Amino acid sequence: MKLLRFKKDAVEKTGVVINGGLVEIYHSLLEASRSPFDDLERKEFYPLDEVNFLPPVEPGKVVCVGLNYRDHAEELNMELPEEPILFLKPNTTVIGHEDSIIYPLQSHQVDYEAELATVMGKEARFVNKEDAMNYVAGYTVLNDVTARDLQQKDGQWTRAKSFDTFCPLGPWIETDMDPSNQNISLKLNGDVKQDSTTGNMIFPVEELVEYISHIMTLNPGDVIATGTPPGVGAMQVGDVVEVTVEGVGTLINRVKP
Amino acid sequence: MKLLRFKKDAVEKTGVVINGGLVEIYHSLLEASRSPFDDLERKEFYPLDEVNFLPPVEPGKVVCVGLNYRDHAEELNMELPEEPILFLKPNTTVIGHEDSIIYPLQSHQVDYEAELATVMGKEARFVNKEDAMNYVAGYTVLNDVTARDLQQKDGQWTRAKSFDTFCPLGPWIETDMDPSNQNISLKLNGDVKQDSTTGNMIFPVEELVEYISHIMTLNPGDVIATGTPPGVGAMQVGDVVEVTVEGVGTLINRVKP
Repeated sequence: MKLLRFKKDAVEKTGVVINGGLVEIYHSLLEASRSPFDDLERKEFYPLDEVNFLPPVEPGKVVCVGLNYRDHAEELNMELPEEPILFLKPNTTVIGHEDSIIYPLQSHQVDYEAELATVMGKEARFVNKEDAMNYVAGYTVLNDVTARDLQQKDGQWTRAKSFDTFCPLGPWIETDMDPSNQNISLKLNGDVKQDSTTGNMIFPVEELVEYISHIMTLNPGDVIATGTPPGVGAMQVGDVVEVTVEGVGTLINRVKP
Repeated sequence: MKLLRFKKDAVEKTGVVINGGLVEIYHSLLEASRSPFDDLERKEFYPLDEVNFLPPVEPGKVVCVGLNYRDHAEELNMELPEEPILFLKPNTTVIGHEDSIIYPLQSHQVDYEAELATVMGKEARFVNKEDAMNYVAGYTVLNDVTARDLQQKDGQWTRAKSFDTFCPLGPWIETDMDPSNQNISLKLNGDVKQDSTTGNMIFPVEELVEYISHIMTLNPGDVIATGTPPGVGAMQVGDVVEVTVEGVGTLINRVKP
């Protein structure tokens, strides 16, 4: 099931994407006391191209993993890390599908990074990898936008990763997917720049949930950004960047000044 | 005015600390439609020692500044940074006055760091230092607990700073204070370990609000941890750590396994 949040006529709604490019609204998705399937007459439908996408979730935190693809580590001639390298993006970075990435004045090199995002569904503390998938609500697509020049200058990655609009997320959450071997790719102005598979992850989703939940409590709606494959590079104002994860969909954003 | 959040008889309340160790509850503080001063009969009073403290604010993000005291930089023989060094603590680290710091199994050196915390009162984007104080709600005390061994091992500081309970905050927010030259000190089991003044900050509060708000939007309730003076060191299970900021108060926490 593909769950999304969007605005229609200035009202925020939650819907399900169905065949033919329609968004189906169960009123009961908005009214917690009702089952989603007990009142078919109260459904509404909207064409997907007539809604304004919102981020599919409002995360309390976005926990990111650096250098998590074998092929990316080889590209950089770096040894495989023994443990995941963590960093955080503040939730004020999050924007939705078709929102604009704002190029900050402080940077002269703003890079894209295609990532699979894991969305938590239940509070997770000290969860083992065997149980991890029971705590995951689903998957979406994320672009870990990075001011590469500031990342190199600062040592700490926080500033470079934390500018407003630096975490495009969406277009929706796929709740029924095996994340272990899906194609992940990125196009810049139509040209393929990244093309790999989540099977190249050094630490797969269940190991990341185990590792992170032994450090910090993961709450429902929290997002784990699982790292990027080879081919990262710079974007310019006016560029259109499309990130696709097989089985989820395509997240499209434009870069603006 | 000293504003605090606490639990009494399992109900969360917001109150004001008044003379004599009492917490005064204006019911209208909980009912947004009423002025706090128009209905004196509806006040309640509790002795401070009969309430369970909650963190005085639930921040969306905690933005921290590394190496922000001149005397700490001298202690470390490090040059003064040209710009603030930022990192983030997830909001799942936050605990209140008298809550326990949990010593994680992954670390063998967990350090205290006494800090003045700035609490934002209004949404701040691209705010200049001349206007910065109009966006600040007040100040509280923070202990930036750090797994020093993991900080040194990882390079990135996120894991070391992000364990649950690693951000004691409180006991309350002082809304009327000049943060520019207040004593800041820390006692471990009664022995003074840190003792300096906020006047030794390299980047004072208004410059931090300017710098950070040009990167990321600061929302009401967000916290800026303004760095620690010299004298940081390790805590052991069973230790009691007290951080005092003149004009605010003392934040006390015990370390537990």
